[in-house]
Amino acid sequence: MADVVSFRKEERTGLVRAERSGPVLRLTLDNPPANVLSIALMEALGAALDAAAEDGTVRVVVVASTGNLFSAGHDLKEMTAHRADPDGGRAFFEKTMRMAADLMLKIAGLPQPVVAEIDGLATAAGCQLVASCDLAICTDTSTFCTPGVNIGLFCSTPMVAVTRAAHPKQAMEMLLTGETIDASTAKDFGLVNRIVPRQYLRQVIDKYASVIASKSPQALRIGKAAFRAQAGLPLPEAYDLAVATMVDNMLADDAKEGIGAFLGKRMPEWGK
Amino acid sequence: MADVVSFRKEERTGLVRAERSGPVLRLTLDNPPANVLSIALMEALGAALDAAAEDGTVRVVVVASTGNLFSAGHDLKEMTAHRADPDGGRAFFEKTMRMAADLMLKIAGLPQPVVAEIDGLATAAGCQLVASCDLAICTDTSTFCTPGVNIGLFCSTPMVAVTRAAHPKQAMEMLLTGETIDASTAKDFGLVNRIVPRQYLRQVIDKYASVIASKSPQALRIGKAAFRAQAGLPLPEAYDLAVATMVDNMLADDAKEGIGAFLGKRMPEWGK
Amino acid sequence: MADVVSFRKEERTGLVRAERSGPVLRLTLDNPPANVLSIALMEALGAALDAAAEDGTVRVVVVASTGNLFSAGHDLKEMTAHRADPDGGRAFFEKTMRMAADLMLKIAGLPQPVVAEIDGLATAAGCQLVASCDLAICTDTSTFCTPGVNIGLFCSTPMVAVTRAAHPKQAMEMLLTGETIDASTAKDFGLVNRIVPRQYLRQVIDKYASVIASKSPQALRIGKAAFRAQAGLPLPEAYDLAVATMVDNMLADDAKEGIGAFLGKRMPEWGK
Repeated sequence: MADVVSFRKEERTGLVRAERSGPVLRLTLDNPPANVLSIALMEALGAALDAAAEDGTVRVVVVASTGNLFSAGHDLKEMTAHRADPDGGRAFFEKTMRMAADLMLKIAGLPQPVVAEIDGLATAAGCQLVASCDLAICTDTSTFCTPGVNIGLFCSTPMVAVTRAAHPKQAMEMLLTGETIDASTAKDFGLVNRIVPRQYLRQVIDKYASVIASKSPQALRIGKAAFRAQAGLPLPEAYDLAVATMVDNMLADDAKEGIGAFLGKRMPEWGK
Repeated sequence: MADVVSFRKEERTGLVRAERSGPVLRLTLDNPPANVLSIALMEALGAALDAAAEDGTVRVVVVASTGNLFSAGHDLKEMTAHRADPDGGRAFFEKTMRMAADLMLKIAGLPQPVVAEIDGLATAAGCQLVASCDLAICTDTSTFCTPGVNIGLFCSTPMVAVTRAAHPKQAMEMLLTGETIDASTAKDFGLVNRIVPRQYLRQVIDKYASVIASKSPQALRIGKAAFRAQAGLPLPEAYDLAVATMVDNMLADDAKEGIGAFLGKRMPEWGK
Repeated sequence: MADVVSFRKEERTGLVRAERSGPVLRLTLDNPPANVLSIALMEALGAALDAAAEDGTVRVVVVASTGNLFSAGHDLKEMTAHRADPDGGRAFFEKTMRMAADLMLKIAGLPQPVVAEIDGLATAAGCQLVASCDLAICTDTSTFCTPGVNIGLFCSTPMVAVTRAAHPKQAMEMLLTGETIDASTAKDFGLVNRIVPRQYLRQVIDKYASVIASKSPQALRIGKAAFRAQAGLPLPEAYDLAVATMVDNMLADDAKEGIGAFLGKRMPEWGK
């Protein structure tokens, strides 16, 4: 079994570390100390996700990071350097923000579930990344914020993800005050699913990922796509879509196998 | 007073039990041990709801179930039997899923408030039924899950209801892991309103239903329809709709009576 | 420094008290004992908000009220008097509801953040006002309800704000039962951000307002507008909007200053 599959290309070495452990692909942001989402890191992460999308043997993706700061968001030094461009940086800022948005949409659109593993501070686009993952587990010392207002740059793109995770007033408080919330508040807000002590983080993530990886990959694929497709639709339209999805899902191989196994009281054997 | 009005027809006996107690109609799923939502049960429940919609003396509908399993969702044996159909079951699956979706839309569209009374496990379409009711009260030992991923059939239709009740990451956790949540978590997620010890369930439900039944049925009807109509609309459009609703409501009989009674410090007498 | 700027005109004296303390504008509903939202009060509050929108020196608006009842909502006596109008009150009811809705939309559209300061009961349109503010802080003895069903007038316009703040079943419980929730439940529901003992309310509000007032007003303006604009949009469209917003924000003066200050480890100096 290929336990370690590397997506690192020469120019990206060290920015995203890709490890495989059976059906679980672990992508670790490796841009210490702040794991900023530079163009290079976003390209590496996007490429790793693209590869995962095409790889039927990957059942779950974990997005983690190196060190005790999950991610500080965009690379302000990189962006500031481009203020010297003839256009004052506009083209570069567009590239940066578009790339980040596409990365978040890629996570939402990925066939496999994506689990964020957070230890430490997730700020600005780093918080957006957490909010954009399907699920999130953090240590009890993790913290979260969208502090753009402190530097004159409102966290408008993180807002898109945060407002879809939490209630409006909760999101507004983070965005307008820039204050940092603790793990427990983040769970109340719907930003994370579970909080664990640091010494158990990896163990819980592995267990959680393996639980999801044990499910029918076909069903997960069908369901995650339907989740995103029906979001925000009026109720009748959402049901039209979900009914069609259920019928197709019933006629697919894994449902035949899974329901047969359930009624026959045996373990199912999933296709790819 | 007709305390027990039966919607049971001969062929449905035992699947849905309808009891009237004054203004409260109690519909009990009676398909033990798992109260599966077979075609016959869904037809019986749908017919009972249709009758309730036309019956001005019904002020509140309670949906309960027999035994200690609220509902296990669709009837997998019934569905599996239809895999032998010439079309592999497609027509039957469409009928089943469409009927379930229409049932949930019927609850949302019912003029009267619908309260779910849960004691025990509500799973898959059973969980969808809970999520689709306007309100829900459960015992402290009740549990909830959407475990379709375990049998290769992602809970896409339950998802429509669950994602509209809870935050996305909370819904995703239920859907992707298939794990069972307890009553307290279900309350945090917004799936249920209240948790009570089993010995008080019926008493609390009766009290709760009678509180709602004491309100203006006209106002409840107007309000519930507006609730559904404005859901998901942009803020200005939602207000356009609600302003028009309020004006009509002000000019309706019960508001005249109710406001007059309030200002006159007497009890109101509602119309039908 | 003009510490007290009065928006009171002769005919509105006493209905809304406007006080300035540096960058914070405090608008106090002053229509005791119930601070009902009469036409005169809504006109006064609307005029004060319009003036604030044009006043670049106002960085934060606080909406508070006199006495121990935040607001009992619409003025039922005023409305009832108009039942004697030739049209039975329709035109007046339309005026009242439209004005209230426009007031809520004005708060949502105001360039500055609006913080509700609640001490006591906020009911019906008073609860709507709380739900419509960007943020809300209340005393631990504050309570909230939408009791229109008790007087035959379903709280349809408050519903628009409440359903956008809380989960549907939580909103439904308030609307269908008319029951009063305590501060802690209101926080769980997402109606308020923080709960403080009464003796510290003003102190916490002042601190909170000054934190927000210390941020870039340009960024707050950009961000609040984007918050409202992207609400409810499908994810890709929301990102299109937010990406464009971020690019413009990066090129605006305060972001240059703020990021420069951050990288240079100095305090930023915001423009207007």
